[in-house]
Amino acid sequence: MKSLYPVEGLRQFVIAYFTRLNVPERDAQLVAEILLAADLRGVDSHGVIRMGTYYGSRLSKGLINPNPRITTLAETPSTLRLDGDAGLGQVVGHYAMTRCIEKAREVGSATVVVRNSNHYGIAGYYAMMALDQGMIGISYTNAQPLVAPTYGRTAVLGTNPIAVAVPAGEEKPYVLDMATSIVPIGRITVYEKSGRQIPTGWGIDSDGVVTTDPGKVLRGGALMPLGGPDILRGYKGYALGMLVDIFSGVLSGASTLSAVGHPNENRPADVGHFFQAFRLDAFQPEEAFRKGMDDFIRELKAAPKATGQDRIYIPGEKEFENHAHNLANGIPLLDAVVDMLRTAGAEVGVAFTLELCGQVE
Amino acid sequence: MKSLYPVEGLRQFVIAYFTRLNVPERDAQLVAEILLAADLRGVDSHGVIRMGTYYGSRLSKGLINPNPRITTLAETPSTLRLDGDAGLGQVVGHYAMTRCIEKAREVGSATVVVRNSNHYGIAGYYAMMALDQGMIGISYTNAQPLVAPTYGRTAVLGTNPIAVAVPAGEEKPYVLDMATSIVPIGRITVYEKSGRQIPTGWGIDSDGVVTTDPGKVLRGGALMPLGGPDILRGYKGYALGMLVDIFSGVLSGASTLSAVGHPNENRPADVGHFFQAFRLDAFQPEEAFRKGMDDFIRELKAAPKATGQDRIYIPGEKEFENHAHNLANGIPLLDAVVDMLRTAGAEVGVAFTLELCGQVE
Repeated sequence: MKSLYPVEGLRQFVIAYFTRLNVPERDAQLVAEILLAADLRGVDSHGVIRMGTYYGSRLSKGLINPNPRITTLAETPSTLRLDGDAGLGQVVGHYAMTRCIEKAREVGSATVVVRNSNHYGIAGYYAMMALDQGMIGISYTNAQPLVAPTYGRTAVLGTNPIAVAVPAGEEKPYVLDMATSIVPIGRITVYEKSGRQIPTGWGIDSDGVVTTDPGKVLRGGALMPLGGPDILRGYKGYALGMLVDIFSGVLSGASTLSAVGHPNENRPADVGHFFQAFRLDAFQPEEAFRKGMDDFIRELKAAPKATGQDRIYIPGEKEFENHAHNLANGIPLLDAVVDMLRTAGAEVGVAFTLELCGQVE
Repeated sequence: MKSLYPVEGLRQFVIAYFTRLNVPERDAQLVAEILLAADLRGVDSHGVIRMGTYYGSRLSKGLINPNPRITTLAETPSTLRLDGDAGLGQVVGHYAMTRCIEKAREVGSATVVVRNSNHYGIAGYYAMMALDQGMIGISYTNAQPLVAPTYGRTAVLGTNPIAVAVPAGEEKPYVLDMATSIVPIGRITVYEKSGRQIPTGWGIDSDGVVTTDPGKVLRGGALMPLGGPDILRGYKGYALGMLVDIFSGVLSGASTLSAVGHPNENRPADVGHFFQAFRLDAFQPEEAFRKGMDDFIRELKAAPKATGQDRIYIPGEKEFENHAHNLANGIPLLDAVVDMLRTAGAEVGVAFTLELCGQVE
């Protein structure tokens, strides 16, 4: 059972919370926008659930800088390397992707990396910033270690997401936003809390052996990269996770691998991000490209279905449907999340006074 | 049992073969170089085995243009869209990546797409062209349909590879070159020829149901995308395969999905490719980046091993070892492949007179 809360009310609450933690009003609006984008899209693991426990507590401890001075470390016409000054990942990420889009407008395509940032929420948000600009957008970020390399037994890589957004015409855009592990760690926690075994392949125990016991994954084990075991070519998922860390971390000069700060650690995270944008009209007349994407999407969706299936999906399709639904009906939150918001608000003197506007299973 | 053949002799044979098919000497050298790069790296599915059956037969039929006039369709300082004039994929791909590197040298990073090309051999070759230039290189290509979308039952996507090459310092570079399916189609054929069942997850039958019968995958079925079934998040592999087709095909204006020409079809393939290059020194002093990569690679390799494993690999590591070994000892070829080379050579008046220089299991 989840309760539905009005989007605008929740937004004002989140903005008030962050401004009380000395985040400038405009930046607080941005953080609220990106957290709510996750909840609206149905990616609730990356939404307001993290407001207090991750962002708020780290701001309070001085581990996130509420008012960063983002600086340029290196620049060419189509590239930029920034230092995020330990700011909120959303503030740093939004600034970096904005600069990336500006540079792509000038010279056709651009690549921007950032060091010294923090968790930036859903990677897809930044890739999607390109959509309204007639551009393709890409964003990667590294993250604290949770995934074992193939043939390893400890968490060394983050779940390091890949996000890519491509405009279409009449069809919805293609929006990929995927962890390079099979599942996120939160999925394992859900199984443990409900007393269920996890499917074979999602995680390993502390010996590096595949286990169906979620507790063994969570305590001493690790997530498996996309693909899973060797026989199903899990080393490709491992390689993609490395790629994200190289582009986000090594190229920006941020921390990488086990050095990326964990939310529970009492030190700056030094997360790195990677962004790209390319103008559609640098390659083709924009309308021709959009028609090409519509044709592409329609052919895939019309392909014959497997027995028992009635629909082939395009990446991002379910999230666009969630977005429309939640925008109309309110954002579904577990009672435990509402309690966290209430407690976090009270700690900084912002009362959670929102009335629920409905309930869902 | 494979016989070993001398690298230089084999190279001269391949060059002579292509020049007899009216490919200019310089282009024939390039095609030989890229085919042999595959055999040297141990990716023999993409090496000289395809000389006659794919490239030669299509040149003979006029489906590949031996002397293409590659033209520019659109250009900005950091982007380029080319038409490959139905040339050999190696000739078109090498030209496109060369231009990509030149543009990245000027403005920091560059993105190049090509339509109207053909199968270009190993994707990794083009990404690796950046390594000696102090750049990161990327290459994708689309290909004829062999992979089913998640919840589909027919082959709609190609095995659409992703290749990325990143220089290091004292360590070997990171070189990813992966199909976005779990395995290539040739792997299924090998299992059928040896009368073995394939592992669960590699392929589906004509109903879209996972099968262990290689014959059902080969006749009416399809390969599964990286990740395999839904429960292991195979839709991520499907999304990556789409991404490669969008970047290589839709963005270049080449054919996509089922319209990409199959080698056995009597029509031009109209394959599309995608290339990127970025200068290391656009982001950091080159030596600092190389040291960062060395540290990154060393931490991964030193991570604790799973029970029963003694080594963690970096993408490309095995292929660099194969390359050194085959360069020293000769290229291992099956007798059936040697017979094909002999027959193909005879058809155009080039005798295969090479003596084997050893044998291996």
